[in-house]
Amino acid sequence: MSGAARRSRTNAPHVNADRLWSRHMDLARIGTIETTGNCRLALSDEDAAARELFAGWCRDAGLTLRSDRAGNMFALRPGRDPGRAVVAAGSHLDTQPHGGRFDGISGVLAALEAVEALNDAGIETEAPLAVINWTNEEGVRFAPGLLGSAWFAGRIADETLDNIVSADGARFADEATRTGWRGDMVPADLTLDSFFELHIEQGPILEDAGAQVGVVTSVQGLRWLDVAITGRDAHAGTTPLGARKDALLAAGAMLVALHRAGLAAGSDARVSVGRLAAATDGPSTIVGHADLVIDIRHPDEEVLVRLTGICAEVCRATAAEYDCAAEVSERLAIPPRLFDGDCVALVEAAASALDLNYLRLPSGALHDAANIAALTPTAMVFVPCRDGISHNVQEYTAPEDLAAGADVLLHAMLERAGCRSDGQG
Amino acid sequence: MSGAARRSRTNAPHVNADRLWSRHMDLARIGTIETTGNCRLALSDEDAAARELFAGWCRDAGLTLRSDRAGNMFALRPGRDPGRAVVAAGSHLDTQPHGGRFDGISGVLAALEAVEALNDAGIETEAPLAVINWTNEEGVRFAPGLLGSAWFAGRIADETLDNIVSADGARFADEATRTGWRGDMVPADLTLDSFFELHIEQGPILEDAGAQVGVVTSVQGLRWLDVAITGRDAHAGTTPLGARKDALLAAGAMLVALHRAGLAAGSDARVSVGRLAAATDGPSTIVGHADLVIDIRHPDEEVLVRLTGICAEVCRATAAEYDCAAEVSERLAIPPRLFDGDCVALVEAAASALDLNYLRLPSGALHDAANIAALTPTAMVFVPCRDGISHNVQEYTAPEDLAAGADVLLHAMLERAGCRSDGQG
Repeated sequence: MSGAARRSRTNAPHVNADRLWSRHMDLARIGTIETTGNCRLALSDEDAAARELFAGWCRDAGLTLRSDRAGNMFALRPGRDPGRAVVAAGSHLDTQPHGGRFDGISGVLAALEAVEALNDAGIETEAPLAVINWTNEEGVRFAPGLLGSAWFAGRIADETLDNIVSADGARFADEATRTGWRGDMVPADLTLDSFFELHIEQGPILEDAGAQVGVVTSVQGLRWLDVAITGRDAHAGTTPLGARKDALLAAGAMLVALHRAGLAAGSDARVSVGRLAAATDGPSTIVGHADLVIDIRHPDEEVLVRLTGICAEVCRATAAEYDCAAEVSERLAIPPRLFDGDCVALVEAAASALDLNYLRLPSGALHDAANIAALTPTAMVFVPCRDGISHNVQEYTAPEDLAAGADVLLHAMLERAGCRSDGQG
Repeated sequence: MSGAARRSRTNAPHVNADRLWSRHMDLARIGTIETTGNCRLALSDEDAAARELFAGWCRDAGLTLRSDRAGNMFALRPGRDPGRAVVAAGSHLDTQPHGGRFDGISGVLAALEAVEALNDAGIETEAPLAVINWTNEEGVRFAPGLLGSAWFAGRIADETLDNIVSADGARFADEATRTGWRGDMVPADLTLDSFFELHIEQGPILEDAGAQVGVVTSVQGLRWLDVAITGRDAHAGTTPLGARKDALLAAGAMLVALHRAGLAAGSDARVSVGRLAAATDGPSTIVGHADLVIDIRHPDEEVLVRLTGICAEVCRATAAEYDCAAEVSERLAIPPRLFDGDCVALVEAAASALDLNYLRLPSGALHDAANIAALTPTAMVFVPCRDGISHNVQEYTAPEDLAAGADVLLHAMLERAGCRSDGQG
């Protein structure tokens, strides 16, 4: 059966590609940087404005909005059977400081678009539906990342969550309250049937394969190590090179040694440092203290644990080499996660039924879905992004790829939630 | 003749060690960090408060205050012969962001203390005297360092000075005006006979030699190179190690390579990076752009020029090695400076006459005196600092060493300015 034939069936609704794209562009006007980029850190004024815009769309679509202690937003659509567990979908609206218009955003908007398509087609599902915006996925303003979904999944205690302090000195609970999204919903209020997350791939695999959709089978594991390097402040002109305890130099040598350790761990390993801060900032001062965060990933937990240990040892040894000391502590540990076989099969069936060129693949990036997979059957849909570029203002996914992915999401949700086959709701 | 015998001579005044010390402690209460440290960046609110306190002391000592376009402060004491050129002394009141209580401050306070001692002894000099606070010596808030003295010496044009923008986005001229120290004096208004600057050594040489005073013969040369490294922002989880253009990793490798280049240039060479900033700051983003400043010093101009070229080449080659590009530009070039033989001899004679254990040595650090030496005969007096530590909150010089150095400054100035031998003014 051809795709066109399938599209004629009344129970095969489709998303509105134009609406989906224009909402991406509307959101991108909040916190715009360098024309095509966005900076909307979690619970910042920009994030608050984006949440308000999204909330308005949800209300217009007839959804009921609730939020929880973490500021996670839940836009709810009742099912014909109120006793059934909720089929949910979503992602995050916060961005990297130098991020793009699609990372996270596409998953929230595609979930909303799926509901809009059901509204347009007059379809009521048996199970209730939820569109979710998870708070602080990026982990830039508040650490760790995936914060909202981690708390929701019970990985972070209430008090710990409340008292996380941002890089700019704000308390998480205060910022959630200030922006108006600290709500009273608790995870137990939402009995989940399943969770689906659409996301841009953020890598080059789909594009290289000419695939429009990725059926994501797993998420690789992640560890973050905090490294505090202590040397001694000194004057750059008077202190002989051999008498220095230069913490920034030691940090530089660590970056090189960590990169080597990553290369030695094989092609699936990822090791990088995206945050490095010196305690002083003067060209003529030898830096006495520096802090950095190492991001380590691997699809195999055993390899990941071994690589994390190697990285910690590399830091200590390198610091000693430069007469400094390094304190290494693990800030975040997320094991690799296999997605639910049934949910993955639904995504694959939807892509196949829609005649889309798709590929099964693991996720190189971490996503909220990895946390939610511990609670409920979960799967992800990937869409390609140009040149595999993400966390970058040049990030781009074509409107037709977004629509194709959103259609897969819609059909997987619909299959899971159930509906009358005549589409009359 | 013993020191005690010399002190009994009416024309041999001495500084008041207690007043000198207590003024250090009074200033240290402005912008205090970590108990014994100071953060008073140039033309900040803290610097403004320190200037106000200093100005009050100058007025109480009967001095007339003027200032110039750069916010340099001149506290003037008339001489018996108004036609004679001015014998000046001073240093700077601004500090490193993580600095101590003596670097710069001691030179300003010792100069003021010399005048106070003359007041106390009722001594009028033939030549007028000036106590000077040079603006923005540290070069942290506004670049380059030694800014006030460089402008005064004609090394920086008026408009260039006015339009320098600080790290926090403020324009130099606006900040000089805001703090009330942008004045109408021009360098031609001050005909200098000579300039003396007392400073803590900021290195371990005097302490190691058990000397209380350093007779400074020269200042080593300095170059600052700005390095802008461009790679490509990317996602840390999805981008294979070999496909990255990690600007922060390239910067780290540069730090290591620059350190090696410094070591290879011999024990007199100094190479360091005290400022390194990534354009993004997220643990899961591969950094696409980073900037750093290299501080390069050597007492020999020829070696300094060669080493600067090597450093630039090291940066370009290292960037290429990591698939990044480096743009290198020279921000600051100060040649090594030999001090005036007569002025150095006066300092040495004063130290000798006061029976102080002294040492002749070159300065490892750069000072305003290096700029002023181009205008007028100049010399410097060093006092030891504990463990050679400076640009550090632990910086410390003992009260008796400060007083000994200030006495040397006083006697050198007095000798240069001339006075009636009976000390009756």
